[in-house]
Amino acid sequence: MIADQPIPKARGRRRSRRGEGMQAPAIMQRPFAQLTRPYPAVERISDDQIEHIHHASLELLSKTGLDVLHEDARAIMKMAGADVKEGDVRVRFDPDLINGAIETVPSEFTLHARNEKHNVNMGGDNVAFAMMASAPNCSDIDNGRRAGNQKDFQNFLRLAQTHNILHMTGGYPVEPVDIHASARHLDCIHDYITFTDKAYCIYSLGEERVADAIEMTRIAHGLSRDQMRDQACMFSIINTNSPLQLDIPMMQGVMALSEMGQPVVITPFTLAGAMAPVTIAGAVTLQNAEALAGIAFTQMVRPGAPVMYGGFTSNVDMKTGSPAFGTPEYMQAQHVGGQLARRYSIPYRSSNVCAANTVDSQAAYEAVFSLWGAINGGANMVMHGAGWLEGGLCCSYEKVMLDIDLLQMVSEFLQPVSTSSDDLALDAIEEVGPAGHFFGTEHTQERYRDAFYSPILSDWRNFETWQEGGSPIAIERANAEWKSRLAAYEPPPLDPVIREELEAFVAKRKAEGGAATDF
Amino acid sequence: MIADQPIPKARGRRRSRRGEGMQAPAIMQRPFAQLTRPYPAVERISDDQIEHIHHASLELLSKTGLDVLHEDARAIMKMAGADVKEGDVRVRFDPDLINGAIETVPSEFTLHARNEKHNVNMGGDNVAFAMMASAPNCSDIDNGRRAGNQKDFQNFLRLAQTHNILHMTGGYPVEPVDIHASARHLDCIHDYITFTDKAYCIYSLGEERVADAIEMTRIAHGLSRDQMRDQACMFSIINTNSPLQLDIPMMQGVMALSEMGQPVVITPFTLAGAMAPVTIAGAVTLQNAEALAGIAFTQMVRPGAPVMYGGFTSNVDMKTGSPAFGTPEYMQAQHVGGQLARRYSIPYRSSNVCAANTVDSQAAYEAVFSLWGAINGGANMVMHGAGWLEGGLCCSYEKVMLDIDLLQMVSEFLQPVSTSSDDLALDAIEEVGPAGHFFGTEHTQERYRDAFYSPILSDWRNFETWQEGGSPIAIERANAEWKSRLAAYEPPPLDPVIREELEAFVAKRKAEGGAATDF
Repeated sequence: MIADQPIPKARGRRRSRRGEGMQAPAIMQRPFAQLTRPYPAVERISDDQIEHIHHASLELLSKTGLDVLHEDARAIMKMAGADVKEGDVRVRFDPDLINGAIETVPSEFTLHARNEKHNVNMGGDNVAFAMMASAPNCSDIDNGRRAGNQKDFQNFLRLAQTHNILHMTGGYPVEPVDIHASARHLDCIHDYITFTDKAYCIYSLGEERVADAIEMTRIAHGLSRDQMRDQACMFSIINTNSPLQLDIPMMQGVMALSEMGQPVVITPFTLAGAMAPVTIAGAVTLQNAEALAGIAFTQMVRPGAPVMYGGFTSNVDMKTGSPAFGTPEYMQAQHVGGQLARRYSIPYRSSNVCAANTVDSQAAYEAVFSLWGAINGGANMVMHGAGWLEGGLCCSYEKVMLDIDLLQMVSEFLQPVSTSSDDLALDAIEEVGPAGHFFGTEHTQERYRDAFYSPILSDWRNFETWQEGGSPIAIERANAEWKSRLAAYEPPPLDPVIREELEAFVAKRKAEGGAATDF
Repeated sequence: MIADQPIPKARGRRRSRRGEGMQAPAIMQRPFAQLTRPYPAVERISDDQIEHIHHASLELLSKTGLDVLHEDARAIMKMAGADVKEGDVRVRFDPDLINGAIETVPSEFTLHARNEKHNVNMGGDNVAFAMMASAPNCSDIDNGRRAGNQKDFQNFLRLAQTHNILHMTGGYPVEPVDIHASARHLDCIHDYITFTDKAYCIYSLGEERVADAIEMTRIAHGLSRDQMRDQACMFSIINTNSPLQLDIPMMQGVMALSEMGQPVVITPFTLAGAMAPVTIAGAVTLQNAEALAGIAFTQMVRPGAPVMYGGFTSNVDMKTGSPAFGTPEYMQAQHVGGQLARRYSIPYRSSNVCAANTVDSQAAYEAVFSLWGAINGGANMVMHGAGWLEGGLCCSYEKVMLDIDLLQMVSEFLQPVSTSSDDLALDAIEEVGPAGHFFGTEHTQERYRDAFYSPILSDWRNFETWQEGGSPIAIERANAEWKSRLAAYEPPPLDPVIREELEAFVAKRKAEGGAATDF
């Protein structure tokens, strides 16, 4: 276990960023800030092609329809005008019904954290990164791979809280299977609220758990239920059961959360060649149909409820059926999904994912392909921002550090490029003149400390010095870094009144036996 | 030495790409093809900001000017209207002179290979990749790092010829220092022409060498000198001596090549914080001024001569002075450089570079940042496409394989996304229905073999199978791959008449003592 070994103290050798002030004493990083993309997202395919996919999706929902397993959800859809037949789970939607329903979706909304400085905006050119979510396993190179557990779960929350580039906790970074399923959501949400003060993702695993999550979040934010209806304070990922099925827990989640004004992220898991057609256009058409059905349903529950369009289309390895991530096809789907979300003016969610089994060059190139696919594809929320390995089956401490470095580099790229007179530097160039050197100039001396991003993992020593230093590779540097950064964690303050109310709620619900585990 | 060890035969396990036919028997890859970017390049900063940089560059050239060490070059500039004073190397250019001179630059041109099927277009949305160039060292993980030599030089040419994703040889992949400098250019260009039939880059190292390169290329293409003047058959990189200096060999190269209608790529090496201001805007302003001066000079030599705008601005590690590559600042400079080149309608060159010392995740993320910076920044020519390690000091066999995989993935992303009825797959989705699986459908069966890119290095096995297989990391897979691919090399045909003329020329020049080595 990680905490059983000596943790070296943070070395504090990272430089501050452009003098805007440091946060934690030992970790030099930019302050927490909303990121924005300063240029239009890439339009990978033409507007006409987007219309082809849009119309095909509507045709699919109208002719084939999809199966909605939850009776109450079908009743709401029927009331809204959908074609629902008694005793049949199949639901069909007229194109006008879908087009009309999605009109009330907010194009932007603010996701509130319990510390308002950690609020983030969704929609438009906004970008925010979330920690990895939902891994059954975790690993580090000292102790290898192990099943998810509470100690690692809490450690990952500490890393998410410590790093300003992680705007949100994205869900359980690793599933703490050492906590009984009846009480797990209570302990995990309690940890979200006490270990971090950022926004988080709760799971739609039945009415009871969602109700508990809403109540705990309400307590954490110090709101009444009525106030909470107008303030997004958490979110939930709603995965459709591709192809063309909406299951009971997911519909329960949408009904409870949309009614309470809490955002859901409708994310079909459309793997081309498996749960979706083998063509990218076909897989995205299926994704779009399922997303539109789910998004329209949120508006049938409550017009104006915040909701996001989630894209997760990727391809499978056709030799083995394994999902692949960070592929060129994945990037294409990220971009086309973003174009569709923008066509509908709905905030867009994508991910930072890979299929690598260790933090080698494959992990890096798949992650960076995913990241630029997300950013240039127009994603507002990038889930699984740090830690994702093995196609999502493992959250790796070293991958967390690699990803934090990558996210910080993406953030640096997105920062403004100033072309003020001072920055154009004509005086400095004149002063240095031909064949001179800029290091000694006042222009350089005034700026060099904070001029450039100082990466966490990159080793820029020359070959000989690097070799004399033992030829370290990036995964080894990542291993040293997560330990020092974990040691630098500081718990965020929490109002004692809120803490007491929260603990009392958890104790009461545990005494009642938590949530039923028969799902 | 590589060839001294047993080379396993190519295994031929890669699948063909979309049935468009295979090339070499053992290596499955797309046929050689011009790539194009199917969406507009990213405009990282505003048009107004681009004008700030443009005007600052012109002001710099007009007020400060730059040093031109070659007397004949100064005379040409003076004749064109530049401010040149007797006995002074400093040259100043009026803004109108620069603006007027660059008007005759061709916005697009074709770079001819001796095999016309390997011609590539520069400018517009065209993209082409070149092999790494100019490394003093090379390495592989079996035999480590060593000084450049002819055997490795030839091996890298074989790999460049074998892989269709490498459109050009970019220069000497590694400097063969075991060939005497007087004859090295003769042997190297001879090898370019005989080991490959793709376009290549020659070095501007004095009048004699450039004249030899022109003559050998003329022979290889079977052209008269007059015909050659209208046909770009090779190119040369012209690095300015930043800051603000144009040296003698570089100017000799421009004069000889532009006069002969052969493209030069004016590439200032403006490292922010060292040879350029510490701000990205300042470094790019210096880059732009130097590039404009060089580009304008090509048009003074011969209006209409093909020329490219080369961007190589990066930052240095301010702790050590080491150049950094693939950084967020490098990407910003790539994008801004591309915007400037497009403002002038001049074809744009960028690079695939990193500062890593081994093929670990750092090598991958720096390379992928560079690559997307080049592609989305609007580069037409991507130099150092495969092999670059250690900030350019080493060409690595394993990095060649990593990069070829990355370039192929970029190429896949750029391929058309069809939204034909067949590809939208509504019938297949209807057939499969809710909760079904697509693998068994005719739609999938007809397409699955070629539906997705099959990476060279990515290991998509699940963790357990991967672990049972010895937990291989990407660099190990790259090591196995370059050997099989080297073994699959087939020399391109060469007309015996041309070969004879070429050999005779090389023999004659060697008998004459080659080129003087007093530079």
